[in-house]
Amino acid sequence: MQALDLAPETAALLPVAEQLFAELRAVSADGEGVTREAFGARETAAHELVARFARAEGLAVERDGAANLVVSVRGGESDGRFVAVGSHLDSVPCGGNYDGAAGVIAGVLALALMKRRAVTPPRSVRVFALRGEESAWFGKSWIGSHALLGLLREADLAQRRVDSGRTLIEHLRDVDADVDSIAARAPLVRRDAIAAFLEVHIEQGPVLEARNVPLGIVTSIYGNLRHRRIACRGDAAHAGATPRSLRRDAVVATADFVVRLDARWAEWLASGRQITVTHGILATDPHEQAISRVAGAVDSSLEIRAEDAQVLDGFEEVARAEAAAVAVQRGVSFAFDEPIVNLPAVMDARWAERLERLCGEEAIECVRMPSGAGHDASVLAHAGVPTAMLFIRNQFGSHNPREAMQIADFGLALRVLVRALLGAEG
Amino acid sequence: MQALDLAPETAALLPVAEQLFAELRAVSADGEGVTREAFGARETAAHELVARFARAEGLAVERDGAANLVVSVRGGESDGRFVAVGSHLDSVPCGGNYDGAAGVIAGVLALALMKRRAVTPPRSVRVFALRGEESAWFGKSWIGSHALLGLLREADLAQRRVDSGRTLIEHLRDVDADVDSIAARAPLVRRDAIAAFLEVHIEQGPVLEARNVPLGIVTSIYGNLRHRRIACRGDAAHAGATPRSLRRDAVVATADFVVRLDARWAEWLASGRQITVTHGILATDPHEQAISRVAGAVDSSLEIRAEDAQVLDGFEEVARAEAAAVAVQRGVSFAFDEPIVNLPAVMDARWAERLERLCGEEAIECVRMPSGAGHDASVLAHAGVPTAMLFIRNQFGSHNPREAMQIADFGLALRVLVRALLGAEG
Repeated sequence: MQALDLAPETAALLPVAEQLFAELRAVSADGEGVTREAFGARETAAHELVARFARAEGLAVERDGAANLVVSVRGGESDGRFVAVGSHLDSVPCGGNYDGAAGVIAGVLALALMKRRAVTPPRSVRVFALRGEESAWFGKSWIGSHALLGLLREADLAQRRVDSGRTLIEHLRDVDADVDSIAARAPLVRRDAIAAFLEVHIEQGPVLEARNVPLGIVTSIYGNLRHRRIACRGDAAHAGATPRSLRRDAVVATADFVVRLDARWAEWLASGRQITVTHGILATDPHEQAISRVAGAVDSSLEIRAEDAQVLDGFEEVARAEAAAVAVQRGVSFAFDEPIVNLPAVMDARWAERLERLCGEEAIECVRMPSGAGHDASVLAHAGVPTAMLFIRNQFGSHNPREAMQIADFGLALRVLVRALLGAEG
Repeated sequence: MQALDLAPETAALLPVAEQLFAELRAVSADGEGVTREAFGARETAAHELVARFARAEGLAVERDGAANLVVSVRGGESDGRFVAVGSHLDSVPCGGNYDGAAGVIAGVLALALMKRRAVTPPRSVRVFALRGEESAWFGKSWIGSHALLGLLREADLAQRRVDSGRTLIEHLRDVDADVDSIAARAPLVRRDAIAAFLEVHIEQGPVLEARNVPLGIVTSIYGNLRHRRIACRGDAAHAGATPRSLRRDAVVATADFVVRLDARWAEWLASGRQITVTHGILATDPHEQAISRVAGAVDSSLEIRAEDAQVLDGFEEVARAEAAAVAVQRGVSFAFDEPIVNLPAVMDARWAERLERLCGEEAIECVRMPSGAGHDASVLAHAGVPTAMLFIRNQFGSHNPREAMQIADFGLALRVLVRALLGAEG
């Protein structure tokens, strides 16, 4: 395997990668962006497309009990433990083409390269396309990796997909998943059989682009706390006939709440507490709203992210206190639904060092950085699997149609991944 | 006709009124409230219900070229001029049962009383159920009264109904209106043949209830200026990976805009300028929104009402200035659509005095008051028709399902209306 000169070997695969990305976009185009809904037709189409390519390359292809796609090559290990490489193929509604897909395709291309060159890695490698990573669909994130480890709870299975209104368990049945095993919380793989979990992913923010560095080595993944629905309720009333003093206006109250949290967020940042605060969804009631009616109801979402679980909880308390203050001042109520909490995760230090060393040996610039965005990798890390992430520089951010990635940067990540897999003692 | 003792005569009709209101509710129930969409099935069902009752009472019933319902009795005039009584049967989505309908039913019951008692009024009376009064459906208000006077413009006919997405002209065709005449702006009645226009309507605010007075005599109707859509555009971005300083968040920017306008509104009230400011509709893009995505787009509506056209324009300037300030501070843009403006209208002083005198003669308490809400009456007043409005006390405001009216208060309005019609020299 020392015979492989990885710079030209991986560069030669980039036209293949570009073709795969183009095909993925074609099966899931949605206006300017792409939509691959978790456990839906377009996510499944993406899975099939990658599976067809892997089979054509002569790789072993399976679907596990959660309808995750698993592509693998056998290695030389004697202890039965394998290296997992994983990411996802679903997207947010009208999102970008590379978020998740870049990691799956990097993994499959790494295996294709080994297969084409008849190279056997020291440890078997299984590449997972994990289902339902994005919280946009069920509120719950990282469904495929949770299922992999037998971690989906009954409450998770009862979550409804925002577009279809149907539950996760119904959608799992649609894709022929083994819902009985999942409901029984049976792991689909033995956790201690996973020697390591590696995830290649586009950086979802602007840090690498701003620093002009192609790759990032992730040190930790922020946790998050999400309210899918904060229901503000006042009184619907005639806009012309109801004086300001008698209004209980849910729009003005929710706006006040949002502006107050924004100001508190700025204060927290100024005092060195790194968090993000986002209201991604906010709306008057489509069934009741009218231009000439004071809105009696507004629902909004709230997401808080932080590197530290206590900081998450601390800012949620701030949010509840501000809502209570607005409620008193403006005569409305705020009801917070049960928060969905994903704890922060620390990446494996030895793997981070190894990836950094490999970048150095390949003369590829990289920086260490935390991930503000959550990833399947955090699920594996929480389960005690040594976990590492490699970020690829991305232009224009992610979760939006203008998300972008240079194919040359992807090639660098692929090179480091192949080296890591060929050297993996784990 | 002096033989009629109107207190018992009108009281005897109240069970009939209650029955009609109950039937109206039954054909248009929508959860707790009612929905009678302009030029839609439920508005038409309400028209048919009232028409059936009027025919059963032996009254003349027609539909005019705009599909307005016209119920009439002949009077003793020699100059061919008639008194028009009018209101509407459409409602806002999930609104109350009496808003509009109370005035139509009062008119039809006034005619039924004359018919039953074989009394001929000094002037012919035509009761109009005017189509499409509520702006909630097409943005444009008072469509039936505009059509009556040949005032609908091409731009009005091209407005789309919010629920169906179809244009007003298509909806007019659905109800067999004479769209060619309407498009040619041919009046359906000669304006100078209308000796007076009287509208009975529930008060849409809390003034009469707060003052414990059953009836109001309207002195003027506030004008309004409406933007159906103020489009705030920033950049969609990943919620975890995009720092606060790099965000162009349309939710926070729109919230800031709403809170600023609310503060400016309070200042204007404090300085004696009577206005109302309402954002009845506000939402992130349902196609793109996600809990974990910074919103790149929020659309909101803005409605300003005032007794004075200059005040309307003045506050719109404030709104544009505040939007511009937010745009600079938060890196977003705000695009205001063309405003729809309805000018304030003054009620006829002689008619207001006459109604006030009749209330006094019947020992019914009343107060003079402006109307913050707009009404078809303003269209007739602007056209130079002597116009008067009688408000009925209403509990819990209007444009909401809890809107309420005491049937005894309705009876008082009916009594004053019958007296006005039997004494109408006009």
